[in-house]
This record gives sequence, structure tokens and C-alpha cells, in this order.
Amino acid sequence: MSDQVTIVEVGPRDGLQNEKNVVSLDAKLRLIQQLGEAGLTHIEAGSFVSPKWVPQMANSKEVFEKLNRQKGICYSALTPNLKGFDIAKQVGADQVAIFTAASEGFTQKNINCSIDDSIARFSPLIEQAKLANIPVRAYVSCIVACPYDGRTKTEKVVHVTNRLLEMGCYEVSLGDTIGVGTPTEIKALLSTLLKEFSANQLACHFHDTYGQALANQYAALELGFRTFDTSVAGLGGCPYARGASGNVSTEDTVYMLHGAGMKTGIDLDLLVQAGEQICESIGRTNCSNVALAKR
Amino acid sequence: MSDQVTIVEVGPRDGLQNEKNVVSLDAKLRLIQQLGEAGLTHIEAGSFVSPKWVPQMANSKEVFEKLNRQKGICYSALTPNLKGFDIAKQVGADQVAIFTAASEGFTQKNINCSIDDSIARFSPLIEQAKLANIPVRAYVSCIVACPYDGRTKTEKVVHVTNRLLEMGCYEVSLGDTIGVGTPTEIKALLSTLLKEFSANQLACHFHDTYGQALANQYAALELGFRTFDTSVAGLGGCPYARGASGNVSTEDTVYMLHGAGMKTGIDLDLLVQAGEQICESIGRTNCSNVALAKR
Repeated sequence: MSDQVTIVEVGPRDGLQNEKNVVSLDAKLRLIQQLGEAGLTHIEAGSFVSPKWVPQMANSKEVFEKLNRQKGICYSALTPNLKGFDIAKQVGADQVAIFTAASEGFTQKNINCSIDDSIARFSPLIEQAKLANIPVRAYVSCIVACPYDGRTKTEKVVHVTNRLLEMGCYEVSLGDTIGVGTPTEIKALLSTLLKEFSANQLACHFHDTYGQALANQYAALELGFRTFDTSVAGLGGCPYARGASGNVSTEDTVYMLHGAGMKTGIDLDLLVQAGEQICESIGRTNCSNVALAKR
Repeated sequence: MSDQVTIVEVGPRDGLQNEKNVVSLDAKLRLIQQLGEAGLTHIEAGSFVSPKWVPQMANSKEVFEKLNRQKGICYSALTPNLKGFDIAKQVGADQVAIFTAASEGFTQKNINCSIDDSIARFSPLIEQAKLANIPVRAYVSCIVACPYDGRTKTEKVVHVTNRLLEMGCYEVSLGDTIGVGTPTEIKALLSTLLKEFSANQLACHFHDTYGQALANQYAALELGFRTFDTSVAGLGGCPYARGASGNVSTEDTVYMLHGAGMKTGIDLDLLVQAGEQICESIGRTNCSNVALAKR
């Protein structure tokens, strides 16, 4: 198994999107710059969705236009539809991400359609992305359970993952959106997925709502998973904030990975600095244990 | 491998000892009562050390005298010496615990002697305990690293563990006191120990200082370890408090264990209530993710 791990840093998008405090354009740009300097190679920098729905992402276009691109870094954007994709392409996003769920209840509540319809709707976007040579990543929410439907059936996860890969997504990020999974369950689920897919087609997007994220990542690591979505300082995920998304902190993940002898290319001290800085900027508690331990 | 796990609840002792807020006798007694009602079978209820050193434990004698003993529960006490043991025996502690470290620097700084001397000093206590038919548990600190000596050699951990078991301790609790270990390292260390000892002679006492405790417990669980020391609400361990000991919360551990199909005999909701209550009593943040998620 490879000792190279890729961290997909979702703090500037998935993280800040869930923070109630306002984040200035400058603070976002500084965060992205510092994350790049710390060695992150994949940074989700913004989202092209309606600012009516996600006001925190209203300045994503400016973020992409003004960011100081560093060599070797993939700056990606979340694009829910073709309109969003067109802007992403226009501002030079290196990659786009789409999202659906492995739960019918969740897609109905959030996208107002069935899972299969939600995937079919992405078809023109994926076609355009192929023409533009822009890789498409897919997020699948609720791989363990759903707030509306309860436990998710593994075959649903397999089905959705299969469809997205068939359509041309290069990677599917498996999200335990409500963070209820435990490592033994995650091990069982991922082992089943590995019968159908290769670990390098999949990524782990675990939430720490019930404190299980690191243990779940470790279970995945042991199975050969080498891509993890995390959020610097646990942005968007602090359990002390109601409605927090529960993102696991990049710092704690990187600490664990380095302890496992994995190569991430990340300088942990610079990463901690980036997290401390953004927390100071937006006036929130740092939710990385590693960051707090290093103070 | 067995599906029965024993949780050694250290909140009332190791936890409250490290809280800066004063804890009344009534609050302690209520906590111990609620923990018993939640299904904990092993509760470290106090410590017979000099109140000059640990003022928070000054009322341990009263705690033992006044606690409402529930059937099937082991109420244990930390006893650093024969004087402490005599009080523990007098007040009817079901078990006593002694402590040393796998690091020379740590024992020198904390007990002012070598590791071997610290163990030899426990000899008369262990003899008295045998005569009184009181089981002795041993804590070994710094199994991964020491704040003074750096990384701990695995052979040191083997040596200390062996001495303590030979002398008659029924179980050795292995402490990653500064919480720096990662699951891959813990797996390697524990695998080596399992060549010399049986998993049922050992317990895991992991700290969450760097966010790794749950992942480390999971690594141990996979190796067959079935005894874990934890602290309700993460008492003593909140990373937002300077000098916190980093105790991992019982709630998050039990949640993980139940997800693994393990039997703990613990009612998670009652456990969460016990944690919420003590946090309210002493005016601190609850450091269990599970408790926060269930609010």
C-alpha cells in the first residue's frame, strides 16, 4: 500500500459556509494562501451556488479571481448546476465538485428530487466538464445514516457511487454527514465498497459530531484509503456551535497520518498557524486538539 | 475474542482532581451515584494522598464513608503509600490503585526516585493488600512519551509492566499520559506487549490531548484489549483548560464500543445525564462530543 496521502482541505468552503460569523474576502484569501504554504495540494476554495441559499459563499468568484495561485495546487469549487459550473470554468477553477446523497429522504429534502434524478441532472455538467478538461469530484452524503431516513443501506451507497463513477467523476467522496458512524461500522461499509471499487476512486469525508472521525479515518487508512477530506481548525464543525457540520480538523488528521508514517507533504506547524489565524479573524474557538495542545 | 468490555470510570478521581473548580462532597456523591445507575461497574471514587498536594481529593474519606454502595460495583481508590492504603482499607475501598511510570525522568520529577525504587516502595502496600484481600491495580504513565525524556522505549514499558504483575497487581493500566500517541504507534506498542502479556492483564488509559484517544482505543480494541479507562464528560481533560490532563470522555468511548457490538452494561443516555449534571454543578463545558450531539 502507498504511504502517500492526499488531504482535500474543505475549510474555505464546507467549513466557512457553516460558520455564522462573517468572513471577509481578505481573510479567505489569506487562509487559502496559508494553506497552500503549509503544503495542502487540494483546496476547496469556494462554491458557486445562489447567495440567497449560502450567503457566506457570495464572494467565491472574487476569491478565485484574486487568489495567488501556487504551483501544484488544485483549487476546486462546489458547483450544484451548469450555471455554477460556467462561473467555475470562467474563473479558472482547477476542479469542480458535485453532490448528492445515498438517502432518498435527504435528496428529497435538500434537492427536491430522487437520488437518481439528482445524478441525472448532473449529466450536462459532467459533459461540459469533460469538454473543458476539468475533473469532476462527487460528494455522497449520508453514507451511514440520514437525519430523515435513519440507517442507510450499503447497497444504496454502492449504487450511487457506481453511477457517479460511470458518469465520469474521477473520485467519490463518501460522507458520514451526521457523524454517527463508528470505526467498526465504517470498516464493514468500506470493506464492502472495496469489493466493487478501488480505494483510489474513493475518499473519506467523516464528521466528528460523535467524536468518531479520527477513529473512522484510521479504520479507512488500515483498509488502504489514502484520500481524506478535512477542515483546518475544524472550521464549520465546532461541536459547541449549534447546527455545526462537525467537520474533522485537518491538524488532528495530519498528526495521526504522520504518526502512521504517511507522507502528506504538509508542514503541521504552518498548518496550525493557518488555523489559528482564521479563528482569530472570525472570532471563534479553534476546534483542533493538536492546535490547542501546541499553544 | 470476547464482546464484553469493562470501563474503568476515572472521572470522580483523575477527572475532578484536575478540575480547578471546587467540587462539593454532595456533587461528588451524586456523580458516583449516577454513574452507578448508568451501569458503570468500576468507579475510581477518590484518592488518599496528602491534601497539601491534591486539595480536590481532601474529602475522599467522606466520599467513601457516605457513598450509597450499589451491588456489583467496585469502588476503588488511588493509594500512593501504606498510609493511604490503611485509610482505603478502613473506609472499605473495594480495590486500590498504585502508580508509577515507564520513564525515569517522570518518576524522578514526580516521585523523586527511579522507576525500580518507585515499584519497590509499593511492596509493603501490595503485601498488606494481599492480606486484606484487596486487589491492586497499577497505573503506568508515559507509555508512549514523557514530557522530560521524550519517546519511551517499549522495553521499558515491558519491564515495568512485568515487575508490577510479578509483584501481584492484577492489572496494569497503560497510560499515554501526554496523549501524543497515534493509533499506528499504539498498535505497534500493544502488539509487542501482547507477546509478553495477555490482553486481560492490561488496560488502556489514553488521553485526548492531540485528538487521538478514540482512534487509539479502536486500535487496542482490534487487538483484543477489553478494558478502558475513561472520564465522564471528559472531566479533567477539556482541551480548553490549560494544564488539562486530556482524559477521554466515557460517553464517546461507550458510543464507539456499542457501535462495535461490544457489551458494556452501560446505558448511554443515563451516562450522558450524569456528565451533564456534574458539568452544571462545577460550571464547566462538557467535553464529550456525544453529550453535545445529544442536546
